[in-house]
Amino acid sequence: MSEKVKLVHGNGGRFSHELLETYILPHFKNEWLGVLHDGAQFPVQAGRMAFTTDSYVVTPYEFPGGNIGKLAICGTVNDLAMNGAIPQYISCALILEEGFELKQLEAILSTMEAMAAEAQVQIVTGDTKVVEKGSIDGIFINTAGIGMIPDTVDSHPKNIKPGMKVIVTGTLGDHAIAVMGTRYGLSLAASIQTDCAPLNGMIQAVLEKVGKKVAVLRDPTRGGLGTTLCELAQQSQTGILIEEEQIPVTAEVKSVCSILGYDAIYLANEGKAILIVEADVEEEVLSILHTFKYGKAATTIGTVISQNKGKVGLRTTIGGIRIIEPLGEDQVPRIC
Amino acid sequence: MSEKVKLVHGNGGRFSHELLETYILPHFKNEWLGVLHDGAQFPVQAGRMAFTTDSYVVTPYEFPGGNIGKLAICGTVNDLAMNGAIPQYISCALILEEGFELKQLEAILSTMEAMAAEAQVQIVTGDTKVVEKGSIDGIFINTAGIGMIPDTVDSHPKNIKPGMKVIVTGTLGDHAIAVMGTRYGLSLAASIQTDCAPLNGMIQAVLEKVGKKVAVLRDPTRGGLGTTLCELAQQSQTGILIEEEQIPVTAEVKSVCSILGYDAIYLANEGKAILIVEADVEEEVLSILHTFKYGKAATTIGTVISQNKGKVGLRTTIGGIRIIEPLGEDQVPRIC
Repeated sequence: MSEKVKLVHGNGGRFSHELLETYILPHFKNEWLGVLHDGAQFPVQAGRMAFTTDSYVVTPYEFPGGNIGKLAICGTVNDLAMNGAIPQYISCALILEEGFELKQLEAILSTMEAMAAEAQVQIVTGDTKVVEKGSIDGIFINTAGIGMIPDTVDSHPKNIKPGMKVIVTGTLGDHAIAVMGTRYGLSLAASIQTDCAPLNGMIQAVLEKVGKKVAVLRDPTRGGLGTTLCELAQQSQTGILIEEEQIPVTAEVKSVCSILGYDAIYLANEGKAILIVEADVEEEVLSILHTFKYGKAATTIGTVISQNKGKVGLRTTIGGIRIIEPLGEDQVPRIC
Repeated sequence: MSEKVKLVHGNGGRFSHELLETYILPHFKNEWLGVLHDGAQFPVQAGRMAFTTDSYVVTPYEFPGGNIGKLAICGTVNDLAMNGAIPQYISCALILEEGFELKQLEAILSTMEAMAAEAQVQIVTGDTKVVEKGSIDGIFINTAGIGMIPDTVDSHPKNIKPGMKVIVTGTLGDHAIAVMGTRYGLSLAASIQTDCAPLNGMIQAVLEKVGKKVAVLRDPTRGGLGTTLCELAQQSQTGILIEEEQIPVTAEVKSVCSILGYDAIYLANEGKAILIVEADVEEEVLSILHTFKYGKAATTIGTVISQNKGKVGLRTTIGGIRIIEPLGEDQVPRIC
């Protein structure tokens, strides 16, 4: 086989089979994999299921701390986790550009394999299309995922009530700045890396312990913390007041933001969650999060209030309150 | 809102929300739709589930008899049906090119809505990304789907045994020729249209009646009938002998094939199924298929034999036997 993806790898015939057998399937071995067929089959128990999908078109497809394959697994795992589900089965649909290096594909698939192992999910079905050189840049990936939601979980904006605490599991903006730094050839500190990570283990630990006292879970990806909180305030018709000085942002990200004029609360994250929890479990939730590597910097950033229904306020370090709007225009396309 | 897709429609903020609310959600209303969240939640019964995904990158995205949206619903519905499953929930992930006409998007989403209604599936979750002008041509769509497999179904290549009959549900090659005709500006007969259709209703009717007497179901998409039968012969380690004069191809497709040098048995179909059934239900299966509009031209094209294990033979109209290989090189990229 050549060392680059060719159009015939997408025609459904002998070469497609070869690509699948030689390059793709070795990374995705499991008993449910729909190897011989367009689809996987597996047993399910009765209950509530979550189902989600995302396409990944990030450019460049490699960046500090990760690549598009890492995003594709973690993004879908996290969407399931934010539904309160235990992620289980994932699909992997690749769109490859003619001429894409097969060793590059292998690196991406290896990352997907490693992330799937860490998140304890199985990649069970997939699809591969090839488009002509110049039709895309390199590789797009879609993953869909399913998982079951334990009965003890009830994550929904309607559960948000005044007095609840708003927790974020770590620093904001790392992913967006890492991708943009690479894209625009900025020489950033080596410590600026994507935060992309599978959060399901950590979230599950919280839910097992405090169950329905978690009102809602969200991952602030595109649109960032600001947009996500605006959606939650709208959907729950409560006010949300956050404290600027409590919002965790690394010094490096802060300084890039101030140079380029970005606001960290609108930057995309790929390994962070927002939890809105009853005040009496705030400390317990934080201490659980702190035991996980992806939750070491977890902190409370605000409170749900009964005033200003549907709105998000940010108490700034100088003491004023700034009303946060959902992200409007922005200059950061293809961040995931 | 402007009449074209803009990059900000993909940033996860206010404009993304507007695109979703104004253009996308009106086509996908149902009780499970994950409107407020990255994912849908719904109850499932215990049993065997099928899960499948496909990305659609067809060019052009409109062609006689259909468009990329029709393919995206029918393709995934049919993959589920070929697993013997009753398709139920579908995801819809759009990748849009900056500048794509919103009225074009609406036309595609309307087609998806109509196809989902016909196939009785619900589009419950989705994702929308926007890439810069020139990064793709127009629109790519990924759909994933899930459905439950009734206990009375056992479709697997291992069930294929000598003496069984090979049935195809209609004429071959229509989809590929319709797409290529448009792409290359050929002036073809108006009767050449994609065969793209949801086959689940028809397949379910067959399975309800003859259940486990259907050894296997496949839809001969990319790679066509020839490649699909080669895979089945290999997987079952039986021989498959088909009769050229029994293979249904319209006169129009035949004549395009003879002019352009295509072989209809390798052309992609999007609304056809292959059923391998026990000989004693052959007539019953055909008469069920004939009652459906997508099965009117169903016919038996061959027999499973004990000789030539793993191989497919075609008895030609002049009496010889030609060994059919899986599709090798071909000149028809982006047919779906």
